[in-house]
Amino acid sequence: MTTTPISPLATPFPTLPEVAGVRRGTATAGYKPWTRADVTLLAFDEGTSVAGVTTRSKCPSPEVELCRRHLAWGTARGLVVNAGNSNAFTGITGAEACAKQVAEAANLIGCEPAEVFAASTGVIGVPLPQAKAIAGVRAAHAALGSASWLDVTTAIGTTDTFPKAAAREAMIGGVKVVLVGFIKGSGMIAPDMATMLGFIATDAAIAAPFLQQLLDAANRRTFSCITVDGDTSTSDTVLAFATGKAGHAELEGPDSPGADAFAAALHDLCRELAQLVVRDGEGATRFVEIRVSGAVSDDSAHRIALSIANSPLVKTAIAGGDANWGRVVMAVGKAGEPAERDLLSIRFGGVEVAARGMVVDGYDEAPVAAHLAGQEVEITVDLGLGDGRATVWTSDLTHGYISINADYRS
Amino acid sequence: MTTTPISPLATPFPTLPEVAGVRRGTATAGYKPWTRADVTLLAFDEGTSVAGVTTRSKCPSPEVELCRRHLAWGTARGLVVNAGNSNAFTGITGAEACAKQVAEAANLIGCEPAEVFAASTGVIGVPLPQAKAIAGVRAAHAALGSASWLDVTTAIGTTDTFPKAAAREAMIGGVKVVLVGFIKGSGMIAPDMATMLGFIATDAAIAAPFLQQLLDAANRRTFSCITVDGDTSTSDTVLAFATGKAGHAELEGPDSPGADAFAAALHDLCRELAQLVVRDGEGATRFVEIRVSGAVSDDSAHRIALSIANSPLVKTAIAGGDANWGRVVMAVGKAGEPAERDLLSIRFGGVEVAARGMVVDGYDEAPVAAHLAGQEVEITVDLGLGDGRATVWTSDLTHGYISINADYRS
Repeated sequence: MTTTPISPLATPFPTLPEVAGVRRGTATAGYKPWTRADVTLLAFDEGTSVAGVTTRSKCPSPEVELCRRHLAWGTARGLVVNAGNSNAFTGITGAEACAKQVAEAANLIGCEPAEVFAASTGVIGVPLPQAKAIAGVRAAHAALGSASWLDVTTAIGTTDTFPKAAAREAMIGGVKVVLVGFIKGSGMIAPDMATMLGFIATDAAIAAPFLQQLLDAANRRTFSCITVDGDTSTSDTVLAFATGKAGHAELEGPDSPGADAFAAALHDLCRELAQLVVRDGEGATRFVEIRVSGAVSDDSAHRIALSIANSPLVKTAIAGGDANWGRVVMAVGKAGEPAERDLLSIRFGGVEVAARGMVVDGYDEAPVAAHLAGQEVEITVDLGLGDGRATVWTSDLTHGYISINADYRS
Repeated sequence: MTTTPISPLATPFPTLPEVAGVRRGTATAGYKPWTRADVTLLAFDEGTSVAGVTTRSKCPSPEVELCRRHLAWGTARGLVVNAGNSNAFTGITGAEACAKQVAEAANLIGCEPAEVFAASTGVIGVPLPQAKAIAGVRAAHAALGSASWLDVTTAIGTTDTFPKAAAREAMIGGVKVVLVGFIKGSGMIAPDMATMLGFIATDAAIAAPFLQQLLDAANRRTFSCITVDGDTSTSDTVLAFATGKAGHAELEGPDSPGADAFAAALHDLCRELAQLVVRDGEGATRFVEIRVSGAVSDDSAHRIALSIANSPLVKTAIAGGDANWGRVVMAVGKAGEPAERDLLSIRFGGVEVAARGMVVDGYDEAPVAAHLAGQEVEITVDLGLGDGRATVWTSDLTHGYISINADYRS
């Protein structure tokens, strides 16, 4: 956590249930000159399945590459997270530090290295210091069982201004299962996939291939639908771990009893986590939902929604509380997707502002200005062409973003 | 012009030659409550050929649609430019105002409406007030011959902080021809094509199809290679008018004697005009040249260069004088183009910072920091994959951009 003021859009840290089969520990490796915890270790009981989605960056960190390799095995016993150093673009030195830390964790837990996952977040380009990383994971292992969900959520944060986590429940074959997710991220946020490290643990029993299928589906409608600045991190990773301790029959596919309930809970959890990241968008003062309908396809609607959400001119207008729908038209026009100027309609907070290519008759800006004065802004665009629809979430672009990012490394 | 302070990157207005066959007039239509000139009329002698490139926005203004239609004729006698109102997204009312103003200009000049071109710039969504537009073009016609290049350059400006124009000469068959260009634009600047209104006049004689070919080629390497905020206007237009008064044999194609010289002069003029727009980028404090080489193709290099140039995190790092090459890696990675992390090298101001996937041995940040402290910044990226290369120009992202755009309409 930095000394940046807490986001005005922050929400309180929730009460979270324990997840059977998961132990947590944190420690201070000292990746930066600080005393806060910056290494997190999660240890999972035997029989835990795993799924994950990672950044589409062509220049990913060694941690991302390691997770991609290890996901092929489908089982997990450990997760190590380093904060303060992303270890990205650090060549062979960084890759080696990552591998050594993971090997040490596997050794401590008593499992295969392929069952341990890793993520690092922070400045790019400085190799993870190997000695600190190993001492850190040892100390975190010694502390297993002592860290709360809040402790680990805080320990994985960097520029985050508040800790972000959520929980859900679902009934599977008469058995209640819990899902807990915690996440970090506030800048360098864009699909695909929204820049962040996010971790989900559940006591449900789910075969790894099906868990992967469910996570992919949830990701497409949640983490891939948020943007703060359109920049994509080299480290984005979301991992889901299912310990199977709840005691129901394993979910193996969409036809397994309870699969729908679990899928809905996972989707809902991911959406809340994704929206929490937007609420901590660097410099954000408004949470913005952008809904596009009437596009020629869902994909087209998604691209148009992101074009609006990523437009600096739209985002600064919202920051200024300005109902500048002309900039929304501009952003639709530049998306490169099918659009007919004279079929387009635009609403702010449910109030129609423009329809059929021009401002509505007797347009009254007062209710729109009142809507924009709040912290929750809704922009709806209908293209009038087809049935394609999409929703994305973003934040406004303010002086705070510039202050944070023009002076981050120093 | 606004009350925004003059860009620190501004250059003095140059001395510009007359272009035989071109007369200029300005007037005050009063599109906003101001006393400055906001209507510009250029009248061209008979025999003037014309070419143009316009925005790729799917929601263009009626002026853009009119220019596209009229370009098919290939001849021009007039150009009307309105500042303070873009007339974009104003439905049939705006289209009618545009048509009426152009018809009035044609009537005054004594030509076909299809020989008159139009452009409007300013707020989106407010129909051009017809009575003011017609009174304005009449007054500008009455004033033909009285306005200087500086007068018309100032009259087409909106949020511009300094007037932007340039000139070139070329020899065609022993005859000296001149080219004069003037341009407006500072925000909503992105390819394709860079958001702006730009007008070029020359006394050379060039067949319209060849002039179009030359302008297209120049545009691809100049106006399409600048970005301020990645936002694309609904009104972007660059038009070139060739009066043919210089007295040489008409250029009909690339084999016409003197065609190369003219093409080089036009390209050079367009590059200077494009760079002037970046120098007036909203809130800009640094002019940034981004060169990408070693890509799999020129197009791929262009997309990677724009990914870097449009990244808010790269632009804020430059604003902060921070040699944060990690953000350059991030922007390369997110471009979606072929890239190999471990082949990538990055230079700031000629100093190699990273090579083969990591920071260079004994990296000394001092000379890089010194380079970034200046107003002219150069970032070079080599991908090590092929021969593709591209250069784009952009500005940094500062508090000034937020201040200008969070409060533009009010």
